[in-house]
Amino acid sequence: MSNVTDVCVIGLGSIGWGAALSLLREGFTVHGVELRSDVLDKFEAEGGTPYSSPAEAARHAPIVMIFVVNDTQTEQVLFGEQGAVSTAGPDTLFINCSTIPPSSAVTIGQRLESSGMQVMDAPVSGGPARALRGDLTVMASGSAKAFDIAEPMLDAISAKVYRLGVEAGQASRIKMINQLLSGVHIAATAEAITLAANNNVDLKMLYEVITHSTGNSWMFEDRGAHIVNGDYAPRSPIDIIVKDLGIVNLEAELTGSEIPLSKAALALFSEAAAKGLGREDGSVIAKLLGEKSGTQLPGLKKV
Amino acid sequence: MSNVTDVCVIGLGSIGWGAALSLLREGFTVHGVELRSDVLDKFEAEGGTPYSSPAEAARHAPIVMIFVVNDTQTEQVLFGEQGAVSTAGPDTLFINCSTIPPSSAVTIGQRLESSGMQVMDAPVSGGPARALRGDLTVMASGSAKAFDIAEPMLDAISAKVYRLGVEAGQASRIKMINQLLSGVHIAATAEAITLAANNNVDLKMLYEVITHSTGNSWMFEDRGAHIVNGDYAPRSPIDIIVKDLGIVNLEAELTGSEIPLSKAALALFSEAAAKGLGREDGSVIAKLLGEKSGTQLPGLKKV
Repeated sequence: MSNVTDVCVIGLGSIGWGAALSLLREGFTVHGVELRSDVLDKFEAEGGTPYSSPAEAARHAPIVMIFVVNDTQTEQVLFGEQGAVSTAGPDTLFINCSTIPPSSAVTIGQRLESSGMQVMDAPVSGGPARALRGDLTVMASGSAKAFDIAEPMLDAISAKVYRLGVEAGQASRIKMINQLLSGVHIAATAEAITLAANNNVDLKMLYEVITHSTGNSWMFEDRGAHIVNGDYAPRSPIDIIVKDLGIVNLEAELTGSEIPLSKAALALFSEAAAKGLGREDGSVIAKLLGEKSGTQLPGLKKV
Repeated sequence: MSNVTDVCVIGLGSIGWGAALSLLREGFTVHGVELRSDVLDKFEAEGGTPYSSPAEAARHAPIVMIFVVNDTQTEQVLFGEQGAVSTAGPDTLFINCSTIPPSSAVTIGQRLESSGMQVMDAPVSGGPARALRGDLTVMASGSAKAFDIAEPMLDAISAKVYRLGVEAGQASRIKMINQLLSGVHIAATAEAITLAANNNVDLKMLYEVITHSTGNSWMFEDRGAHIVNGDYAPRSPIDIIVKDLGIVNLEAELTGSEIPLSKAALALFSEAAAKGLGREDGSVIAKLLGEKSGTQLPGLKKV
């Protein structure tokens, strides 16, 4: 256990915001970095200490948690001009909570270590609401020493921490596989319910049977309920699924792996994004499939 | 409730055999029809009454349950030479427990009704072991009168009966959607675990995380455990999945529905069948994907 009281959080988007507030609630001094000044104002009002550059913030904390969108942004906030590494003290622990390609998690980890820093690969899942409640799931890999230091912060932001090895990349690989299955299952849920609707199946009856049968999945249970009830409030936006399945595609190419289902799902989500549906929930591809199939699902207007 | 004591079961394959034995156990007189004489001998030894033709058997029972492989066989045992309809008494209840295209369930139902028979569309799921225990799941549609007559027999063979409407086809449509999701999820499970293995992920750790995360599915939990443990004992053979996804494909064409995920899965299973893997478990497509991806999963020899 560490006695660290100061934490730097880079990126106050939907997940980083919830994590930062969870850390404040647990009594940490949170140095938050964000480009949007209105978000920084709100953060200060919540008791946080606001910064517009990683370099300014990182000098105040021996732990830096990163919640950005992709690996390019991760590299920039770490190693770019005004990057956190330029001012961080030696042996600072960098906890990378963004979902990035496992191969990037490896190279970024190596670069941090060769700068004399400690590193933890720690992608999270759970969405904004769970982030706000401090209820995320963390998939983490890193040294025993890093886990000792990070434990109070990970506990503050999450309901569950998986320890998945000692090297950067190990956690990101398992997160990637989860995103593969999640993306394929969202697409399969939309495809199944669209085919059912096109065959005049009672969708509520279908939902009841499938959730008790071999065709069930976490995503069918969750997104299927939304589709059947015509509720398309965004949980995972299509743009994020396109990004995550893009990671799957990239890593599959790097290792020469065949991923026909992921490719079929990625093609669907990419098509939806190209039609301007990127910020809508993944289940909205039911709209796209419905349009192509000449049917319409509850609560969905035409594309 | 009916006082029927005699039931005819056409087809003593893996599911029909278990259903017939469950009916015997509950005290019914079971008139079983099967082409293979060794199976008929075993059936007689179990207390059943054996027949080699549907016409001979159907004259002895006011209820006929059909457990054959596809719609062609269903039509043959009903309407072909020596078909059951030729000798069945008026108002006999035909319960079709085979998984056939919903459109065929409709036309076969109409043909039975216009021959003066009653009909129930009642595909089952659960596999041979559950069939033997009388623990199948029945997805059924038919008239209230048909359900009244069939109730004791359905109870004898199943743990759960879903009542899914009054017309033939309604139950088969929901079974079809379950098979779509099951097939896609088996393929996704194999794809995900193969990609993980190719990226040196600890598969037991992966299984633990995924079964508690958004990527989980009934099939991942079940077949994923088998793949991770190198256990490829057949649960649903590839040939059956090819048949079931073929039904999905057929009905999607009839209704002009787009099913890209099902098509990707069907292509994989068909390729495996063409390589002679048709009688192996569906999860064995991990072998095919592993071969293409240059990796090998626990317990799998090369294709």
